[in-house]
Amino acid sequence: MDPNDKKKALRLLTYGLYVATSRDAQGYAGGTINWLSQSSFSPPLIMAGIQRESSLHQAISASRVFAIHIVGQSQKDLAMSFFKGAAVNGDTLNGFRFEPGITGSPVLVDPPAWLECRVVDELRRGDHTIFVAEVVAAGVRREEPPLTLRETGFFYGG
Amino acid sequence: MDPNDKKKALRLLTYGLYVATSRDAQGYAGGTINWLSQSSFSPPLIMAGIQRESSLHQAISASRVFAIHIVGQSQKDLAMSFFKGAAVNGDTLNGFRFEPGITGSPVLVDPPAWLECRVVDELRRGDHTIFVAEVVAAGVRREEPPLTLRETGFFYGG
Repeated sequence: MDPNDKKKALRLLTYGLYVATSRDAQGYAGGTINWLSQSSFSPPLIMAGIQRESSLHQAISASRVFAIHIVGQSQKDLAMSFFKGAAVNGDTLNGFRFEPGITGSPVLVDPPAWLECRVVDELRRGDHTIFVAEVVAAGVRREEPPLTLRETGFFYGG
Repeated sequence: MDPNDKKKALRLLTYGLYVATSRDAQGYAGGTINWLSQSSFSPPLIMAGIQRESSLHQAISASRVFAIHIVGQSQKDLAMSFFKGAAVNGDTLNGFRFEPGITGSPVLVDPPAWLECRVVDELRRGDHTIFVAEVVAAGVRREEPPLTLRETGFFYGG
């Protein structure tokens, strides 16, 4: 397999951009992710690929809960601020206000929509872990088209 | 959780549109899917959510191999023709020509890019199975932007 063909083909997969957050005994954690998809209607499950060596991974693995925020088309700054994780200050993460969700995960108030999830499977393969999780809470705050990875000009894949 | 909120939020996830194909002792199988994402860089892995009650699922589960085709923006007809599976006629599936890939999966010649994969994990949860698979072959035939689920007006999620 030509590594260049592999990279080019994998970069043609289509992704949204999401801020994932969690909370464990160490505190709050967060990060921008795009390896995410639904994986069942009933029960409603999602699967997320999370980088093994991240504080977000540690928090999700310990707490078995997380929140996913759908980043709006106008919120590239929000997505970019979570590329390097989450810095907590009072009730803000990277300066963005959150409220405690029913799972204990911090739920950001600015994104157009969010999901809270409980992990049901954790599959460690390669350099990421696949967390399979049931959606236990969800909300839509306003109508805004979601930001896609392609629109940002960034890549994560290949 | 309000089921409507859950549905609305889940439908804000961003997806591409892909034709998956496989082959087992029963013959060829295929279907259009969108629950797909990369899940590791090294080794290169993808995760795909495949409906449990489909001939595509049966073929992948039996053969442990499949091919993924990235559908081009001009190929909505190709994607739609695989909504209900694949009908074989000579060297065509639903009228679209294929060649045998190195995994034995039929590789369609029209889509702009493709991946061939070998299953490393199969996780049955809910109404779909998550197949985690290593990318073992890939090709890009031409430059065409990928079709996204949102552009088609269809939904599969919620």
